[in-house]
Amino acid sequence: MMPAEDERSRDLPAGHSWIEVDYRFPPGADGARQAQMLAVGQTAGSWDARHSHREKELRSHLGEVRSLALQEDGGTVATIAFPRGNLDGSMGALLTMIFGKYSLGGVARILALRLPADYGLQPRFGLPGLRQRLDVHGRPLIMAIFKPALGLDAAGHAEILAQAAMAGLDIIKDDEILPDLAEAPVLERWRACAPIIEARRDRSGRDLLYAVNLSGDARSLQEQARRLVAEGANALLLNVLTYGFAVLEALVRDPEVAVPIFAHPAFAGALCGAPEHGLAYGVVLGTLMAHAGADAVLYPAHYGSLPFSAADETAIVAALRARAVAPVPSAGVHPGTLAQILGDYGCEVILNAGTGIMDHPDGIGPGVLAFFEAWERWQQGESLRLEAVPPGPLHRALEKWGGG
Amino acid sequence: MMPAEDERSRDLPAGHSWIEVDYRFPPGADGARQAQMLAVGQTAGSWDARHSHREKELRSHLGEVRSLALQEDGGTVATIAFPRGNLDGSMGALLTMIFGKYSLGGVARILALRLPADYGLQPRFGLPGLRQRLDVHGRPLIMAIFKPALGLDAAGHAEILAQAAMAGLDIIKDDEILPDLAEAPVLERWRACAPIIEARRDRSGRDLLYAVNLSGDARSLQEQARRLVAEGANALLLNVLTYGFAVLEALVRDPEVAVPIFAHPAFAGALCGAPEHGLAYGVVLGTLMAHAGADAVLYPAHYGSLPFSAADETAIVAALRARAVAPVPSAGVHPGTLAQILGDYGCEVILNAGTGIMDHPDGIGPGVLAFFEAWERWQQGESLRLEAVPPGPLHRALEKWGGG
Repeated sequence: MMPAEDERSRDLPAGHSWIEVDYRFPPGADGARQAQMLAVGQTAGSWDARHSHREKELRSHLGEVRSLALQEDGGTVATIAFPRGNLDGSMGALLTMIFGKYSLGGVARILALRLPADYGLQPRFGLPGLRQRLDVHGRPLIMAIFKPALGLDAAGHAEILAQAAMAGLDIIKDDEILPDLAEAPVLERWRACAPIIEARRDRSGRDLLYAVNLSGDARSLQEQARRLVAEGANALLLNVLTYGFAVLEALVRDPEVAVPIFAHPAFAGALCGAPEHGLAYGVVLGTLMAHAGADAVLYPAHYGSLPFSAADETAIVAALRARAVAPVPSAGVHPGTLAQILGDYGCEVILNAGTGIMDHPDGIGPGVLAFFEAWERWQQGESLRLEAVPPGPLHRALEKWGGG
Repeated sequence: MMPAEDERSRDLPAGHSWIEVDYRFPPGADGARQAQMLAVGQTAGSWDARHSHREKELRSHLGEVRSLALQEDGGTVATIAFPRGNLDGSMGALLTMIFGKYSLGGVARILALRLPADYGLQPRFGLPGLRQRLDVHGRPLIMAIFKPALGLDAAGHAEILAQAAMAGLDIIKDDEILPDLAEAPVLERWRACAPIIEARRDRSGRDLLYAVNLSGDARSLQEQARRLVAEGANALLLNVLTYGFAVLEALVRDPEVAVPIFAHPAFAGALCGAPEHGLAYGVVLGTLMAHAGADAVLYPAHYGSLPFSAADETAIVAALRARAVAPVPSAGVHPGTLAQILGDYGCEVILNAGTGIMDHPDGIGPGVLAFFEAWERWQQGESLRLEAVPPGPLHRALEKWGGG
């Protein structure tokens, strides 16, 4: 029997000299032949007799098919081991090796990726670091999103933040679709919001993180991150899959950008959505994000507004938690989903609500308060059913969105 | 009737204020509803009554479903127009808008993308610039690949290049799977090869471009590119899809990296390979590459060693040529495929052969000469069939690989 995906993707011991990948080939493909093509074609390349004098050097770089398992539906799952020495430690080189040219010809899906624990980067903060910055322990962190973001200027961002900050919010992030536009330049957004964060800290002693969305080319984006952090920005948001893992890695390595980085999953479906192609969500949003240094990773909760599978969510969370990266189940999160999320995750989670806060019938402040009210009831074992909840923000939220 | 894909992906006039995308939804999906979700969800986001006071600002950012066409198989093709003003001009923001969050939930495939001609970057060299640098006109450019690359040190690269240079090769590139390894550091590879290129220029007056493979994180990769160019490197290779379009854009904008950039398609199949998900090859390897500033783009020739479709190849070439980017049909190219490629492309093409040069039975020099022999016969209308070709490099190549 195949182990569950979250088991299959566990890190290998630090110093391990192989990288292991599980590929699935669909029914009808010659899995054994395809696996051999991958192991050889993505490493030593051709094996012409003319290269026999170089056999020793080539052999040290050669991939190996470690196992082949025929599936019930006629597909094949192959485990291939690649020498770690073929790589420079970057995600770009890794993806080029394990799927690069092969992806243009063969039909295969990467189900799992096992990297040595010391391959790539560690998150600099992770969930423990976020808790330390916020000085919030023993409860889930509550996170909101500026929405609708397009058409909202810097002052509009500040107005929203003022309401959310007053209600005790922990983290807010830009909408991922808002780049550095002339009508709401990213630096102005931060400058308008910074005094509100400062005032909250002065008043309550509690920090509030604002993950500012980065955009541009790889260089201008990093310069933007540096300017933001130099002006006090305390968190960043990156659409890792549309900008590149290499951009995330550069930010994580930059001592001038010493703030937590939230990774957004936009575009992951282009890589992960098809059943027999691309890569499993657990690999892209779990293993790769965790080894590229993200501090927190967003992904759809399987009971949210996007049709996401529980197995994918489980695989993502296992890979993130193995490296202390904060899991951020998202999309369709509202106070009525809190019990279900905490049932799955316990408290070590960030609850990220966009419309589930912004569109609360009584406004943004009550939108945040409804989450805290739900958390307090849950913690004390009280029911979250509408009829059991007294009038107030949570009651109004449950009326609108259901759940509980 | 739908226009052919290469027609559908034509650039819009410069200054055009919309970006148009054709999506296909599979049979069984409610195409009209999905299109609406895309147009609204990827722009204005939610349309809650609470935001009515912001309606004017939101409306200027709203996407519009421009057409819906039911396909014979029950699928739907929808054209959606997105305001250009939602973007900062980067490919990262573009991909986030047109497919970002939606890709996590809905099943759709992007068939075509029409960008204003002045969106993004122009190639700085393109095929005309490559010809000018090489001073080669009126014939296809001949390009080789260092293979097998892993296990080959800097001196080994130089040995191969010496043979190829003597035979008159125009361009050589690193294997895309060779990053900056301690056993063959990228700077040492260039330093070992530079004197051979210089000697060829002194001897024949003709330059030879060596596209050096970049790797690392976004910042170290760009520093590597700058160091290489400072030491005289005259071309670069980037795995655009595993490092990110943002990395390509940063290189193209960098005045310190004023050399042609070759874009490798490794990993494109993870985005483009599935029938109903992701993006068409013409969008990724054509439109996006051409608007991100690549000078030359590699992709599988449909009669090569990878099972690639002629329609995909046609769409890629149309998008590249619209911006003077050099098309580089690759994978399984050998002298026996020359007539077919030139029949399709004419002379305005780069013929890129890996094993088709390196594994020539008589060695690398004859591997290059076989291409020139084939070109001369083709130009003079002489047969390329084995029995018509006199003994020599081309005859030996046709014996080994067939074709003609």
